[in-house]
Amino acid sequence: MIVEIPPRSGTAFRLAKGESLRVIDPEGEQVADLLAFNAEDVAEALSNGRTFDYLERIYLTSGDPLYSNRSTILARITEDTVGRHDFLLTPCSADTFRILYGDAHPHHGCFGNLAQALAPFGIAADALPCAFNVFMNVPVDGETGRIKVLPPLSRPGDHLTIQAEIDLIIGLTACSAGQSNNFRYKPIHYEILPP
Amino acid sequence: MIVEIPPRSGTAFRLAKGESLRVIDPEGEQVADLLAFNAEDVAEALSNGRTFDYLERIYLTSGDPLYSNRSTILARITEDTVGRHDFLLTPCSADTFRILYGDAHPHHGCFGNLAQALAPFGIAADALPCAFNVFMNVPVDGETGRIKVLPPLSRPGDHLTIQAEIDLIIGLTACSAGQSNNFRYKPIHYEILPP
Repeated sequence: MIVEIPPRSGTAFRLAKGESLRVIDPEGEQVADLLAFNAEDVAEALSNGRTFDYLERIYLTSGDPLYSNRSTILARITEDTVGRHDFLLTPCSADTFRILYGDAHPHHGCFGNLAQALAPFGIAADALPCAFNVFMNVPVDGETGRIKVLPPLSRPGDHLTIQAEIDLIIGLTACSAGQSNNFRYKPIHYEILPP
Repeated sequence: MIVEIPPRSGTAFRLAKGESLRVIDPEGEQVADLLAFNAEDVAEALSNGRTFDYLERIYLTSGDPLYSNRSTILARITEDTVGRHDFLLTPCSADTFRILYGDAHPHHGCFGNLAQALAPFGIAADALPCAFNVFMNVPVDGETGRIKVLPPLSRPGDHLTIQAEIDLIIGLTACSAGQSNNFRYKPIHYEILPP
């Protein structure tokens, strides 16, 4: 069953060990921020730093593991029809929109959506790590370290699938930041696949 | 007063608003992992993702702010005689040495040193974020995303100074990972300077 995450919103749910989560971009050029926590102990969370360290690479694709802050593999990417995602940036937030875009009355962003959706699982807003930003296109200039947020390379129907290696709590959004979806706020679809 | 952090060890201390912390590489080619927390509420911690987002750059130097997970500027870099530091990677740990180097009986690394030093301040090991790795030299290939850990560019006496914008708890190490200090485990010096 395919579930729709409406534009600028988010959700959270369990993903059991062995199950897969397919994140689908139904219209193209739309980012989905993805977080993962150990369902048995939510102090164990997705860690971009640990993943970069063990992978020796900042861009992830099919076959790559997603590590936790305790160096456990939480999930593995099993399918990726796009090949470019971001793992550097935190979920967009009211502060992002205030500081970067100068919004006087900013939207609460993916951060607010994730904090609300994950609270029932006992996960505090302060504990939200950098997300794996599916379809987000953030090229890095290796000389200067400058980053740019460009429109995603994803086209309608493109998808990325992760398979859980332990029982997980997942947070997932249809990203709220204009810059990361070419200023067209669209939904995200997802599907849970059995082992 | 200059304080020495012995090779492969770490420490933690308060840095009051307005005070500066100078991190000195006394012998050259030695990394120091630096963490910062809001002294009044340690759930507020250094965030590489927020910093990258607002700075639009992954390499930091003089003048650059260090943001928290709540988008507060914790400190600002006021002096930097090297110009190349890393903010992508988590502190090295027993898992790092086991997974990356295949050590059967691994050292507990900067992560273990920081966890021990920060525990008296009520900071849990699971809450240690990616560090600002002073003097660590991690070039990124912008095309492939590959990263390499190369010997630091720091020479004897090189230093980096941050000035606290709020009262902070600082964690600081003389890094334990051979790869990041050219396999010569050396001390780090630091000095707290009045406002």
